[in-house]
Amino acid sequence: MSGGWLRVVGLGPGSAGLLVPEAAAWLAQASDLVGYAPYIARVTQTEGQIRHASDNREELARARHALAMAADGRRVAVVSGGDPGVFAMASAVFEALEAGPVAWRALDIAVVPGISAMFAAAARLGAPLGADFCAISLSDNLKPWPVLEARLRAVAGAGLVIALYNARSQARPDLLGQAFDVLRDVLPGRVPVVLAHSISRPEERLETSTLADIDPTRADMRTLVLIGTEATRVIERPDAAPFLYAPRFVEAR
Amino acid sequence: MSGGWLRVVGLGPGSAGLLVPEAAAWLAQASDLVGYAPYIARVTQTEGQIRHASDNREELARARHALAMAADGRRVAVVSGGDPGVFAMASAVFEALEAGPVAWRALDIAVVPGISAMFAAAARLGAPLGADFCAISLSDNLKPWPVLEARLRAVAGAGLVIALYNARSQARPDLLGQAFDVLRDVLPGRVPVVLAHSISRPEERLETSTLADIDPTRADMRTLVLIGTEATRVIERPDAAPFLYAPRFVEAR
Repeated sequence: MSGGWLRVVGLGPGSAGLLVPEAAAWLAQASDLVGYAPYIARVTQTEGQIRHASDNREELARARHALAMAADGRRVAVVSGGDPGVFAMASAVFEALEAGPVAWRALDIAVVPGISAMFAAAARLGAPLGADFCAISLSDNLKPWPVLEARLRAVAGAGLVIALYNARSQARPDLLGQAFDVLRDVLPGRVPVVLAHSISRPEERLETSTLADIDPTRADMRTLVLIGTEATRVIERPDAAPFLYAPRFVEAR
Repeated sequence: MSGGWLRVVGLGPGSAGLLVPEAAAWLAQASDLVGYAPYIARVTQTEGQIRHASDNREELARARHALAMAADGRRVAVVSGGDPGVFAMASAVFEALEAGPVAWRALDIAVVPGISAMFAAAARLGAPLGADFCAISLSDNLKPWPVLEARLRAVAGAGLVIALYNARSQARPDLLGQAFDVLRDVLPGRVPVVLAHSISRPEERLETSTLADIDPTRADMRTLVLIGTEATRVIERPDAAPFLYAPRFVEAR
């Protein structure tokens, strides 16, 4: 069977207003949707479309299944929250592609970007990512702690704003607190820290604190954690949350 | 006059399919568009809408003008390519807000995110940002070279994928070459390097090379430079450019 394709599609942070039209178009044309159940549930149902919802820990099996269906002539959309290339399904799809039958490499495969959580959170806050920044995943099942610790020290020491993904889970509840301990070794306690929950969804919530005072138990797996720098500015406002921004100019140290 | 507002809007990389609906809605409602002329030119003209196009070097003056118009009751959209919070107009707007009249802090101001160049480029390539990564601007008029050099050494040494913005200009044509020299000190020459030009626009062009072989004179100010890591995988394909991806698992060093 020919005519099959696979698109790895980013759903953005949640609201329809932040889903790019190109993603919406592929979702509407797909014969099969593949992904973690809560993301699949966000997609508008199309008649005849088959939904293959799975557990969050089955990324590679899900990717293989999607590729096999595309090879069978199906029109397959693999869905991720945010941007599929940021700690989401795209890497798993290409890992499965590389390990799979050589014939899969001739398939029509493409990735459609989306608004990742850190940009949705940053937009709500002002411009906290307006200078050099990095994105680091706290998934320690994918990365040994010494590697993670070295990365946190390097980026904080170099003055980058930090966005932490996969901040906290029941399987590793203490990791975020350990990460804050490492950062307190390098950065002053007054550095702003924000816990951003479900930005653009009805349950949206932003908690702004400092590195000295932040309580890691306030975060869960859906929390994006933003850690500013010594340069991050806070603009107080009447009757509204303060704006945070990163100045464009960096002074010599 | 009341009812004024200011939205800092990201236009994404260029194609209409990658402009989020929320951004399109604010652009259509704006009485005034403010921004760098080539970005303003991308916006669909609305009847009666006033276009304030300016030079790229006038960010702060442009931001002050936009805030003053919003305070005057105008509906102002400040436009940036990509995401306005990533090396674009949002930081300048908040810098102008902080330095301006206190009354401006009561204005209705918000940021609408967009697809930044590195995600558009990453999507075309596969999933090169699928592990920890950073975004660094090479604007040395905003940042002294020693700070930039230290940041490049830190992030490359820590194993992060690197996206370089504002990679090259006529005013500082040698900076990108100097940055590659620093990175070659830290990373092996076989690390993939991609120059991504005008992704999603008709003139889109991707050049994939290695850190050993890359020619910095191939880049200009509109080029996004992606530098992989030792772990970056390359999947060769028949009759198509190879896919690049970052494996999800990181091994201990």
